[in-house]
Amino acid sequence: MDSNLTLMTDLYQFTMMQGYFNGGGHKKTAVFDLFFRPVGAFNYAVAAGLESAVKYIQELKFSDDDINYLAGTGLFTPDFLDALREFRFTGDVRAVEEGTIVFPHEPLLTVEAPIWEAQLIESALLNIINHQSLIASKASRIAGTAAPAQVMEFGLRRAQGPDAGIFGARSAVIAGCSSTSNVLAAKMFGLTAAGTHSHSWVLSFPSELESFRAYAASYPDSCVLLVDTYDTLKSGVPNAITVFKELQESCRKPVGIRLDSGDLAYLSKTARKMLDAAGFPNAKIIASGDIDENTILHLKSQGAQIDIYGVGTKLITSDNMPALGGVYKLAAVEQGGALSPRMKISDNIEKTTNPGKKRLYRIYTPDGMATADLIALDGEKLKKPLTLTHPVERWKTMTLEDYTARDLHKQVFKKGKLVYKLPTLTEIIEYHERELKTFWDEYKRLVNPHIYKVDLSDGLYKLKQRILLGFRD
Amino acid sequence: MDSNLTLMTDLYQFTMMQGYFNGGGHKKTAVFDLFFRPVGAFNYAVAAGLESAVKYIQELKFSDDDINYLAGTGLFTPDFLDALREFRFTGDVRAVEEGTIVFPHEPLLTVEAPIWEAQLIESALLNIINHQSLIASKASRIAGTAAPAQVMEFGLRRAQGPDAGIFGARSAVIAGCSSTSNVLAAKMFGLTAAGTHSHSWVLSFPSELESFRAYAASYPDSCVLLVDTYDTLKSGVPNAITVFKELQESCRKPVGIRLDSGDLAYLSKTARKMLDAAGFPNAKIIASGDIDENTILHLKSQGAQIDIYGVGTKLITSDNMPALGGVYKLAAVEQGGALSPRMKISDNIEKTTNPGKKRLYRIYTPDGMATADLIALDGEKLKKPLTLTHPVERWKTMTLEDYTARDLHKQVFKKGKLVYKLPTLTEIIEYHERELKTFWDEYKRLVNPHIYKVDLSDGLYKLKQRILLGFRD
Repeated sequence: MDSNLTLMTDLYQFTMMQGYFNGGGHKKTAVFDLFFRPVGAFNYAVAAGLESAVKYIQELKFSDDDINYLAGTGLFTPDFLDALREFRFTGDVRAVEEGTIVFPHEPLLTVEAPIWEAQLIESALLNIINHQSLIASKASRIAGTAAPAQVMEFGLRRAQGPDAGIFGARSAVIAGCSSTSNVLAAKMFGLTAAGTHSHSWVLSFPSELESFRAYAASYPDSCVLLVDTYDTLKSGVPNAITVFKELQESCRKPVGIRLDSGDLAYLSKTARKMLDAAGFPNAKIIASGDIDENTILHLKSQGAQIDIYGVGTKLITSDNMPALGGVYKLAAVEQGGALSPRMKISDNIEKTTNPGKKRLYRIYTPDGMATADLIALDGEKLKKPLTLTHPVERWKTMTLEDYTARDLHKQVFKKGKLVYKLPTLTEIIEYHERELKTFWDEYKRLVNPHIYKVDLSDGLYKLKQRILLGFRD
Repeated sequence: MDSNLTLMTDLYQFTMMQGYFNGGGHKKTAVFDLFFRPVGAFNYAVAAGLESAVKYIQELKFSDDDINYLAGTGLFTPDFLDALREFRFTGDVRAVEEGTIVFPHEPLLTVEAPIWEAQLIESALLNIINHQSLIASKASRIAGTAAPAQVMEFGLRRAQGPDAGIFGARSAVIAGCSSTSNVLAAKMFGLTAAGTHSHSWVLSFPSELESFRAYAASYPDSCVLLVDTYDTLKSGVPNAITVFKELQESCRKPVGIRLDSGDLAYLSKTARKMLDAAGFPNAKIIASGDIDENTILHLKSQGAQIDIYGVGTKLITSDNMPALGGVYKLAAVEQGGALSPRMKISDNIEKTTNPGKKRLYRIYTPDGMATADLIALDGEKLKKPLTLTHPVERWKTMTLEDYTARDLHKQVFKKGKLVYKLPTLTEIIEYHERELKTFWDEYKRLVNPHIYKVDLSDGLYKLKQRILLGFRD
């Protein structure tokens, strides 16, 4: 993603931009919210991608080559194309920080900008935030289930293209993975790179034992041996033990073995016994091969002796839900000098949107635990005591006498200028760990979790009803 | 994917490369096959990604910055790092052309090179070929089901990162989609860019009718109106008809409407009647919203009146199978001056590999239809008549008196030099169309297809048995 992505948008953004330009309304202010709708597989999501989004916005600029390409489509007038030459982002962006736990309908990012600018950036913002949040969310489930075992991200070869491998690795580490196999991602983001050898190493030698000896000779202090090339228990583990003993004789400490096929519960338990009996109780067992959070849960429940999981395909593609489904919807537009709320009504009830310029608060009980989120109108004061109402089952309410509210949004751009200090990756990881601790485990359960409440404020609820009724009149 | 991807590999490639280097064996020749294993959702796959793979191999070169990064990991010796400075790809690559129909176990690409070179490029080749072939395969199913209706690729916002959007669009068009919404992809590859306006356009005006009029004013000759912002049949279609009549009065021809929510069968049939009754029988109906090949099949079976499908998320992520699962396995390695076949045996029978340097043939009956593929050893002559044996059910055979065999591999690199003329995108599309026509529809059915036979030659079958038995001795 190093080249300029200004043209990376849907064609309809340009046709709409020119439509606004022709009518003279391209600079009227619009407010768009980026959020995702309720999704089957995930109970919570982890926001990621803001750093890439910031870089994308900062680099927005049409080259001559871009303008010439657009001219060649025959769809655009010279006036409009000339105006694009001076195009820069001049608006405001507010967003949740990377590593924040987020829920359906919550604005992860809000853009307030001249409508043609807000429109252009829709597609790339969705692409970036959708993808990186998706992988962080999946990684959070996998790493959370594996803990205290570590998870290594191994997915580069199955990722949906280079960017998916690179930014997927970063997202995985944000949400709890300890390392990645992807060297370029490790270099770009300061991640820990990890890995040992593959089956081809073993096969390229006349025998497994010779291949293990050669590997140990090169890596006497970081020796992990892959034991399933021929037969894990009859050949791989015994040969590994032979080489580990040879290392021990030269005062080196072998690190462990990796299992990559077969029944990982049975093999890990048996290999553990073999390693222990041979005097290597500290040798780690790493397991890989089509693993996800459900496999880990089941392996653990059967007492698998796995210290580290290597997770590839199912993490890097979010196999059971390969798209977060985030959308970017108009919430307000300038009309007669003021912002007028807007709402998509649609033929599908779940596709109606929340109108108006909004704020997103997380409500904490005095013990510091998150109890609900509140989407409110900008400028709306939160009452104390605060009554939260279930967003659909309106008869269910909860009144909090004492609470604290945290505005989850940070100001990122102000009039086109970056006003947000991008945190380091370490800061993001630590923030995410703190975030997780403020949510009860019941909200994080993989199956049938307790549903975390995201309420609409009184002001927003009333506005929404008013617009819905107004349309029906 | 414009930056240099030389470091985009798994760390273990470097640890293995140094291991070979330390033992002095890094330049021994190795043969690796890239293939995929039987996969649930797809009966056939469409090869794609060769153009990107060629570019990647041509640009392989470690920068000083890369070397410094590797030095900083503490894993590598100065000698090895110095050797990397001169690293270039010097081997051979044979591959199937983009657009070729391929099946499990067939080498899509074979690398014959000094082992440290062949090893370095594994991860990126898998990433590129896996991703692009995956999306081409999914697109082939979607476009094949929709035909004669066209399919527009709309997935940028849900793609797993920028590369996934960009190269996914190219793959989709290779396999039958008519256009993409992604402007950057259209520019890069000469694709047709398509799209009109979104809900936000409609919402940004005081009324739907005003928004339609404004759009028609800017695009009188390419006017497609999105009709589901408020109420498709009560508001959207009637307003579209009003504007279409106004266009007609000024001698312009409206293009059509787009449905994006609600029941697409009911809405399209009703909208069709309304458009016909209003005198617009040529106005197209475009449908979008969570569509895939199964939705299309069901909509068509219910007589939905859809002329063009816009397909996003489920195409660009290959929703029901987001990874092709391609692997890259050692098939032979230099030993005593000659290539010695190698085979991974593994604890999972389906993970055993086909040993030796191989050829891939497609066998055609005299009517020009593909009847089976044959994986043979390099140099093995095909007999006439040819007896094909079922690869698993060995008692099933078929003898062809008359046939033609096509070597599916092209020589791409020879001693590190590109010797393959990359075809244009138009040539790839036309080749893919011809390819498809040589397969009976029964092989292409979405559910319970007839299984296309991929046989092992006598020579390869015997070699495999010999190695398996040898290991068991």
